[in-house]
Amino acid sequence: MEKLNKGLKVIHELSAVTSWPASVTPMAAEDSGKHGFWPKGFSSGAVEAGIKYSNRKDLMLLTTDAPGSAAALFTTNLCCAAPVLLSREHMQISSASMRAIVCNSGNANAATGVQGMDDALAMAEAVARELSIKPEEVLVASTGVIGQHLPMDKVLAGISGLPSSLQHNSVIETARAIMTTDTFPKFFTLDVRLSKGNVRLSGLAKGSGMICPNMATMLAFIATDAAIAPSLLQEALRYANSSSFNAITVDGDTSTNDMVTILASATGPEVAADSEDYRLFSEALEALMTFLAKLIVIDGEGATKLVEITVLGAADNSDAELAARTIAQSSLVKTAIHGEDANWGRVVAAAGRSGAVFNQDELELSFDDLIVLKPGFIADFSEEAASEIMAKSSYAVTLRLGSGPGRARIWTCDLSKEYVDINGSYRS
Amino acid sequence: MEKLNKGLKVIHELSAVTSWPASVTPMAAEDSGKHGFWPKGFSSGAVEAGIKYSNRKDLMLLTTDAPGSAAALFTTNLCCAAPVLLSREHMQISSASMRAIVCNSGNANAATGVQGMDDALAMAEAVARELSIKPEEVLVASTGVIGQHLPMDKVLAGISGLPSSLQHNSVIETARAIMTTDTFPKFFTLDVRLSKGNVRLSGLAKGSGMICPNMATMLAFIATDAAIAPSLLQEALRYANSSSFNAITVDGDTSTNDMVTILASATGPEVAADSEDYRLFSEALEALMTFLAKLIVIDGEGATKLVEITVLGAADNSDAELAARTIAQSSLVKTAIHGEDANWGRVVAAAGRSGAVFNQDELELSFDDLIVLKPGFIADFSEEAASEIMAKSSYAVTLRLGSGPGRARIWTCDLSKEYVDINGSYRS
Repeated sequence: MEKLNKGLKVIHELSAVTSWPASVTPMAAEDSGKHGFWPKGFSSGAVEAGIKYSNRKDLMLLTTDAPGSAAALFTTNLCCAAPVLLSREHMQISSASMRAIVCNSGNANAATGVQGMDDALAMAEAVARELSIKPEEVLVASTGVIGQHLPMDKVLAGISGLPSSLQHNSVIETARAIMTTDTFPKFFTLDVRLSKGNVRLSGLAKGSGMICPNMATMLAFIATDAAIAPSLLQEALRYANSSSFNAITVDGDTSTNDMVTILASATGPEVAADSEDYRLFSEALEALMTFLAKLIVIDGEGATKLVEITVLGAADNSDAELAARTIAQSSLVKTAIHGEDANWGRVVAAAGRSGAVFNQDELELSFDDLIVLKPGFIADFSEEAASEIMAKSSYAVTLRLGSGPGRARIWTCDLSKEYVDINGSYRS
Repeated sequence: MEKLNKGLKVIHELSAVTSWPASVTPMAAEDSGKHGFWPKGFSSGAVEAGIKYSNRKDLMLLTTDAPGSAAALFTTNLCCAAPVLLSREHMQISSASMRAIVCNSGNANAATGVQGMDDALAMAEAVARELSIKPEEVLVASTGVIGQHLPMDKVLAGISGLPSSLQHNSVIETARAIMTTDTFPKFFTLDVRLSKGNVRLSGLAKGSGMICPNMATMLAFIATDAAIAPSLLQEALRYANSSSFNAITVDGDTSTNDMVTILASATGPEVAADSEDYRLFSEALEALMTFLAKLIVIDGEGATKLVEITVLGAADNSDAELAARTIAQSSLVKTAIHGEDANWGRVVAAAGRSGAVFNQDELELSFDDLIVLKPGFIADFSEEAASEIMAKSSYAVTLRLGSGPGRARIWTCDLSKEYVDINGSYRS
């Protein structure tokens, strides 16, 4: 309960400082559960299967009443988990017409060989039986420890209890069921005003270790009532992902299980290709995904700060991203953020080794609006003002490399002793 | 004194378990100072300049009586420090005929603009005056905090005291003077038997943060009495560096000040190109540099373990190195090493995101001689035996990706809470 309250507080505060697009109405976090979280046509539920944790729901189901369209992005890690392989296959077999997502926490079903594939398929088949749909209409996701086989008796018993747990409003329990080292459930919902009426976008996400999504993301499940073609939905998802989940890092470790999916029930207004509605829908999806991505960083393992790293003036976007990512992942930068030390030298040193090309004499660096470094390495700033900024729980670091057009933005967190504590003993 | 004893113990123990080449005679660490550490023609000294630390020598000089040949490798970080820029220039102007290395700790003279270049040059000029040599025969190195100007009054006063501190045997004081967060001085000397007599190789090195050398290394100064042409010396240095200093990582952060140099006094036997002597000399140089590199990892910031990561069976060496580096730098792997948790899933997950190409079903992983993972993700091993290995202060992790010829080896350390402590407050 304490964790939930913390989560609601974080979600509420972040929403209040977010610049939402004009056509978007965010829902107050407190009301998400009460007033119906999901778009029309969706329900979700969760049960305690006892996979690893006790006294905690650890198995969830999100389902749509009628076949709609779906889109998904998966991890690029070569050691991708069995549920990733299976879900990718199901997306193809079903031509992206999916009906359900089942997900367990406590066990990633990764590095589990042939047995792992059998187990993932058994999960899809059990859900299909319960819902009277086809196994290939089910997306399967798992998160937790790598390299252990799922306790399938518990998983299958849990699945048989899922249908009776389904509700239109049970978002908090559902978001909780996918948590591993997360300290609060992550969810958000918003309405976007289109020409023929409102469309809703609702999403769940989880962190909070092995976070450095690459072409895909950690687990995030999004639902919408928009009527939108699968290929268009995939395009919107890919676009939104590049500046949201793909732009965060907690520890630089890309997971074996990253997956972001969106299901569209087609019970609401149509979103057609090349329309203004599509532009608004994409913009809203990007806003929702960015919001959920920031929640993951805020709740990064051991994290106490959310820092936005922006690199400007690079030769091109790819150079800017190299520099931004290297800064965001540098252990020395992350410990300085933790220690609230305005150690700007570590930021420029990280940029210098990133592979981005620039002239060091042109570097300009700011913390929020405070310029700490001017070209020619002139560092004439108030340490007191810098300390004030670094004491905040969230601030921006902006590095200008030169006068090129390239830019990139990455969100990161600090590296704390708690991170070491959490990860020195996670498996046991 | 306590630190020195720790250092001597570490050096002695590592030497005892090192497979030295047959023609090499390592010197017992205890005797290094007593019996003359440096090759003929070299002397070194150190003084307390009070640059940052008090009650500690922080400025050193290594000098050779007559002009010999030199070779050097410098950091590839674009934000390279003023002394790196200057030393690179001096190597060119002097056609690699160098007479002295001056180095201070406590301040990196990096990200210091035009003033920083003036200061580095002033250091070279002051040393040149004291020794009656040319400024361009002086290599300058600095290590410590980035982005602050050197207190030149203290530095210049210190330099004027250096000549009277010069001794043939003062290796420990000299090695101490370049320490920053290092907890013990790092030095070693060995003799290599060549056809016309023995050649000596003696080196100093320092860590212990911002360690992920790329094409170059942290500070390491090596001296030899061999008579060897500069181009050949540079070739030997580059070759030895790739498998020693370039094969270690503490925190993945490549420094702005990395530099490894070797001075040859030509007072001993000749080492000619394409000779068996050259092969033996190169082998001995590689052994010495690997030894010093391991000392840096052992003394990595907050480190308690030295772990050798080997990747075999890759498509090529470059793929093997990608995988080995990614494993060695993964925060999740490093915290598991710290927690003595045989979490092999994190090792394969890191390989999976590394960019190396392989089939996950062929992976085979061992901790020392214990196979923990067989192809097909069969993890049938004794947790007790694994725990015993992981409790050791040094062990090997070997990952076979497939049946290709590519291989690479990297040394890394664990990630501890002390690392966060050290780096959350280093600048202040």
